[in-house]
Amino acid sequence: MNELRRDPVSGRWSIVIQDPMQTERLLVNLRERARVTEKYDANCPFCQGNEAQTPPEIYAVRTGTPPNSPGWTVRVVPDKFPVLRVEGALNNRAHGMYDLLDGIGAHEIVIETPEHSTWIPEMDETHLVQVLRTYQYRIADLKKDQRFRYVLVYKSHGEATGPAAHHSYSYVIATPVTPPRVKQELLNCAQHYQMKERCLLCDIVHQEESEGTRVVVDGKDFLAFLPFASGSPFETWILPKQHETFFEDNAHLEELAWILRRVLAALCDVLHEPNYVMLIHSGPNTSYGQRRGYWRTLAQDYHWHMEIVPRVRGFTSFEIVSGMYVNFVPPEHGARVLREKLSATPGGGL
Amino acid sequence: MNELRRDPVSGRWSIVIQDPMQTERLLVNLRERARVTEKYDANCPFCQGNEAQTPPEIYAVRTGTPPNSPGWTVRVVPDKFPVLRVEGALNNRAHGMYDLLDGIGAHEIVIETPEHSTWIPEMDETHLVQVLRTYQYRIADLKKDQRFRYVLVYKSHGEATGPAAHHSYSYVIATPVTPPRVKQELLNCAQHYQMKERCLLCDIVHQEESEGTRVVVDGKDFLAFLPFASGSPFETWILPKQHETFFEDNAHLEELAWILRRVLAALCDVLHEPNYVMLIHSGPNTSYGQRRGYWRTLAQDYHWHMEIVPRVRGFTSFEIVSGMYVNFVPPEHGARVLREKLSATPGGGL
Repeated sequence: MNELRRDPVSGRWSIVIQDPMQTERLLVNLRERARVTEKYDANCPFCQGNEAQTPPEIYAVRTGTPPNSPGWTVRVVPDKFPVLRVEGALNNRAHGMYDLLDGIGAHEIVIETPEHSTWIPEMDETHLVQVLRTYQYRIADLKKDQRFRYVLVYKSHGEATGPAAHHSYSYVIATPVTPPRVKQELLNCAQHYQMKERCLLCDIVHQEESEGTRVVVDGKDFLAFLPFASGSPFETWILPKQHETFFEDNAHLEELAWILRRVLAALCDVLHEPNYVMLIHSGPNTSYGQRRGYWRTLAQDYHWHMEIVPRVRGFTSFEIVSGMYVNFVPPEHGARVLREKLSATPGGGL
Repeated sequence: MNELRRDPVSGRWSIVIQDPMQTERLLVNLRERARVTEKYDANCPFCQGNEAQTPPEIYAVRTGTPPNSPGWTVRVVPDKFPVLRVEGALNNRAHGMYDLLDGIGAHEIVIETPEHSTWIPEMDETHLVQVLRTYQYRIADLKKDQRFRYVLVYKSHGEATGPAAHHSYSYVIATPVTPPRVKQELLNCAQHYQMKERCLLCDIVHQEESEGTRVVVDGKDFLAFLPFASGSPFETWILPKQHETFFEDNAHLEELAWILRRVLAALCDVLHEPNYVMLIHSGPNTSYGQRRGYWRTLAQDYHWHMEIVPRVRGFTSFEIVSGMYVNFVPPEHGARVLREKLSATPGGGL
């Protein structure tokens, strides 16, 4: 019998199809993709040596070389075509009964590597720590701007087009309103805390550890697991076991990098390098103006986490109109497949 | 300057791009599609004469012929591969801290016409009224089942594959939990009523009528307009001007059919028959068990409406991770384009 499962963090419902044959069919039907292997592409604006092809850098991890020249390992530049612009005032206002404000925000690109086709499973952990630390630095820096309510970090693997399509990069986007998906999570976490005086995601860590069936990696400071009401096959979350509101405060990036690399390598091996979305949900910006108190209260019940969502198919119309998801790989099954893959490759490489 | 606009019904935010060139580019780049014109396809299970290719019918509009034979104008059959099954008990339960229930529901197909490739702009209004009345009948009938919290009606034009891909049909799906998208609307409407003692969607009708810039058709009983914070180019809503909670109670289907046909014809003409999703958001099922009182209260603040969402592109990763939308056709511009199209074709045909 299929099951309807509710995710307490997002509030979404997933219809989990209990049919092991569908998982087998998915894994068999996925085709091996030809990977680009060039380490340099003259047309790619993100390759080392092509720094003049991007707007001037905001930040870079460098060993003594001048800005906008070679000699970096991670580099942050503004997006050339931002949907939200950094200059101007919010002009937060009403239009009759409606609400609007000007399209103010920040839209940055984190170039994760100077090499054209190197992707996360191929990066060594020291390098991956630099990438994660760059996210932390940009989040903390953008949160100094009181116009921004939230800073979202995400990457979309495999969907980009154009000359930089095969270069590994991610986005840091600061928004002047809390993104609705995050806001719902903040409210659900606050409501859980109000009722139980415990953090919702701390409770999830305990239940997942004691059940074990959906766990992929049970580390010292982090847990990687497939959520009970996964919306998509092999959706994986990584979160700190100890309560922590802000990703940018985390001091255990070495272990996070190790787990992230292993999990992505296993996912990409099992699903033949799928398109995937990776995102970091950190706490909101509590630095600004008069509402500090309200937001501080809401923020402290939150527990940051990372989500990796392979996109093995598009959304169906049913999913779009209902906000319910249909997942034909039960997370218990997906987690077992990933655990088996990881135990067969103890170094975690591909 | 781009604007961030909030939709008070769904709570979503849209980034509305103020760049008229982008609309022009969209309209110019859309290509004319070759339309299938056959009125019968031997392999299509939904064509008249092929009734034996579907499961036995649940309902049909017939003139005296026996069930599952030719001689019908609208026909309802169960889906052959339902994600939710009608047989069984809900077994609503907890799994540790999580919530789940069995995958119970109903999954029906409304075959809108006996002819293979006839689509809504080609149907006469008498026929379209029969389709709308069939939706009403199926919603009311499924709501007698106290296991179902909600009945969703929607159609997805242009995305189906297989032998019935070119046959016009819609879905009626009964779910044992309220779909999250609808629940959020119910809560937002209830909150608005609590604060203002007025219906949120009645307020929207008044503001749209008095502004006029986003209105497409201002009828006697219905208003068709592009919402202030449209998530997609040319997204159009149709709603009754007088407060009404349940679509299935509506007694003005002739005007609704007339407006729906005109709006779809204009949209399909302007966007060259785009893929689109059409949905009806009616009030929830208030018939069941002990919670009647709570749901009755929540339901009466709701105001049913129809949404037509052309899908001119897929969702971007930013939209998926944030729940914010990027719409590069301001609704004021889209509405003007549709009004001009409609005034040029007074009969409303293509």
